[in-house]
Amino acid sequence: MLSEDPIKHLVEQLAKLPGIGERTALRLVLHMLSSERDSVPTLAAALMEAAERVHECSCCHMLTALDVLCSTCISISRDRSVVCVVATVQDLMALEATNDYKGLYHVLHGTLGPMEGIGPKELRIASFLSRITDSNREIKEVIIATPPNVEGEATALYLAGQMSGLKVNITRIASGVPVGGDLQFADRLTLSRALHLRQRF
Amino acid sequence: MLSEDPIKHLVEQLAKLPGIGERTALRLVLHMLSSERDSVPTLAAALMEAAERVHECSCCHMLTALDVLCSTCISISRDRSVVCVVATVQDLMALEATNDYKGLYHVLHGTLGPMEGIGPKELRIASFLSRITDSNREIKEVIIATPPNVEGEATALYLAGQMSGLKVNITRIASGVPVGGDLQFADRLTLSRALHLRQRF
Repeated sequence: MLSEDPIKHLVEQLAKLPGIGERTALRLVLHMLSSERDSVPTLAAALMEAAERVHECSCCHMLTALDVLCSTCISISRDRSVVCVVATVQDLMALEATNDYKGLYHVLHGTLGPMEGIGPKELRIASFLSRITDSNREIKEVIIATPPNVEGEATALYLAGQMSGLKVNITRIASGVPVGGDLQFADRLTLSRALHLRQRF
Repeated sequence: MLSEDPIKHLVEQLAKLPGIGERTALRLVLHMLSSERDSVPTLAAALMEAAERVHECSCCHMLTALDVLCSTCISISRDRSVVCVVATVQDLMALEATNDYKGLYHVLHGTLGPMEGIGPKELRIASFLSRITDSNREIKEVIIATPPNVEGEATALYLAGQMSGLKVNITRIASGVPVGGDLQFADRLTLSRALHLRQRF
């Protein structure tokens, strides 16, 4: 099926992406068709390959192109006694970039949001709970690293509630004034929390 | 050839586009792979179709998917006595959107920029001059609509010089305070020009 106007059709497809408007899409298309035409098949192939090969890890639900499990879950150098629960793939990547965490992960693919109709069943929560149970106490600690906003806190509370019967230590990442940040520019909630969660020096 | 990490590969390809950084590219990729996976083959196909079918019109150099000439050049309802010279495809589209111009176009695909090594041979200038000559005086007016900045003015001057021996009226689009604009926010050059190019009321 040939489209009447391939430029317009491509602009429409690109403009469906978040944060890309019609004008930006047109700019990208004209750039690709003028100076970067050779790279278009490479980009198209990269899109197809990603769509065909990338899937969720059957254990932690991180996106992976490996057969069943992701590189973290099959790694022999990771600490299998700790699981860090994150809301999104990006959050996992941000934590990995710290090079400071050697445990495993669990990606929920979202946070609870009753207003948007996102309940526990829309997230990877059931598989997380059975993962803890099935580990036969190999998992000693669960770090809840959902974001410190309304939805993230609700999700953290829900998860903690669901795990109350399980023999596992539940922790929450710290929240307060960012390192290098200025107290005068921190919002009131962040400052209140930084005060409440103060630690012995 | 399978890439080691299809997500990283796709992010790299997308991040080559102007105005798309690594972070934006990652956001787009994760969006496509989670909520919009079905649309990925459509986007890939749209990219390939545009790269394969879109080419420059052999007369005005506008991008087109038609066989040889673009829809404007083959149209029987356009005024063939006027040719408007524009720097870019976007500029042509902006002029068309006014619905106020019924003549033909010529797209230079850039403006003269000696600093960037863009001379007359890098632009569609030779084909423009032979187009005027070959028209046997069917073309009565050339509107130079290159942008009113340093490169655009230099290009306009160069074009006017090249056409000096030809029997054709050369005009330049007006430049001044934009309609709806405020004088106090116009830059000094624009205001100077608006004064110099004042017209009888």
